[in-house]
Amino acid sequence: MMIRTAETNLKALGLELPAAPKPVASYVPCVQSGNLVFVSGQGTIFNGQRLYVGAVGRERTPDEGYQAARICALNLLSQLRSYLGTLDRVTRIVNLRGYVNSADGFYAQPAVINGASDLLHQVFGPEIGRHSRTALGVSVLPNNITAEVELVVEVDSL
Amino acid sequence: MMIRTAETNLKALGLELPAAPKPVASYVPCVQSGNLVFVSGQGTIFNGQRLYVGAVGRERTPDEGYQAARICALNLLSQLRSYLGTLDRVTRIVNLRGYVNSADGFYAQPAVINGASDLLHQVFGPEIGRHSRTALGVSVLPNNITAEVELVVEVDSL
Amino acid sequence: MMIRTAETNLKALGLELPAAPKPVASYVPCVQSGNLVFVSGQGTIFNGQRLYVGAVGRERTPDEGYQAARICALNLLSQLRSYLGTLDRVTRIVNLRGYVNSADGFYAQPAVINGASDLLHQVFGPEIGRHSRTALGVSVLPNNITAEVELVVEVDSL
Repeated sequence: MMIRTAETNLKALGLELPAAPKPVASYVPCVQSGNLVFVSGQGTIFNGQRLYVGAVGRERTPDEGYQAARICALNLLSQLRSYLGTLDRVTRIVNLRGYVNSADGFYAQPAVINGASDLLHQVFGPEIGRHSRTALGVSVLPNNITAEVELVVEVDSL
Repeated sequence: MMIRTAETNLKALGLELPAAPKPVASYVPCVQSGNLVFVSGQGTIFNGQRLYVGAVGRERTPDEGYQAARICALNLLSQLRSYLGTLDRVTRIVNLRGYVNSADGFYAQPAVINGASDLLHQVFGPEIGRHSRTALGVSVLPNNITAEVELVVEVDSL
Repeated sequence: MMIRTAETNLKALGLELPAAPKPVASYVPCVQSGNLVFVSGQGTIFNGQRLYVGAVGRERTPDEGYQAARICALNLLSQLRSYLGTLDRVTRIVNLRGYVNSADGFYAQPAVINGASDLLHQVFGPEIGRHSRTALGVSVLPNNITAEVELVVEVDSL
């Protein structure tokens, strides 16, 4: 069996997860079916503060977009830990979908969504962290957040 | 085993499902793999009539958006019943993705997609109906419908 | 068991798959969990050349959009063959999500995404190739490509 070190890696990286944001509407953060957990789209609320708003290529630079996507990923991890008890139950990051609030003419969505993907690689390592992915640009996001990211992960059977 | 009362609830709510819309192109409404059923994105056609067109924040109010999302959910249920025979075979609403035809500057997509989420809660109850979710704004939708919603559900093994 | 003839069909159709595009960022093309393979969003790079850029309804005609979506599907197949060894291991195309780079006022996304769906039907035949689907319009796509398509497929257990 693969050794799972996500919680240890998080500490080594000096990362503290934000409080898991409460859903802003009629849904729950995580639903499991079999070994798959679907995590609801997470935005840029960080411990109750909305950190990044506005479109990349207009109000936000690509680097700010990268940071925004990283915050989305931290929130995804917080939701997962809250659901699973520990991130070490994750056996694979299966699929990530990232949406970038994009000005017309901004085409570097993949570089922005790397903010989420890179964090997942750092925390889970190459074997568990490598995921399939789609990066998209959209003209508006809820509450005008800069990015939104959702995940499908595989977890152990307990 | 959980008692499944979706069909009873539908009747108690006085809801009649619309006729399952025929796919508008080269695909089918439902595909199952294992216990998961993926339901194709459904729009605002209701018994053959396109009920809501236009963007929320421009041609449509948020409340009309909510109603449009509710119609998407009724169509999803209609497709599921048509595929499964009865909605009582659904063991969990796993994941919902909702797309709102949005004017620039309209940021309340979650409240709009609640039109779909709330209906699923009413019909399936809290245990089966609670789902993970992503709500997004898009600048255009097929045939200029106001909302489009897709589902992944878990069903029993027969 | 169903006879799987995707590789034979590809030859009969005279189709050669392009080289599998390298991910443009921090992710991998395919991730499997159980019998499901999630394939990362593929665009209109064809053997290293970006063939279709621009929005349908502005720089591109709907027919060019259809061709663009077909190229996305060829890239998806190339990624799958590269991952699975042979397309004949695919037991079902489960779900397709197609995104069309769309000018304001362009509403025929389903007809564009048929470029991908039709190819999958031709290659896999009706039983394996019929899939659930969502077609969406977006205002921007990475590198201004005309279309992007992602897949979930079911594969045999080896």
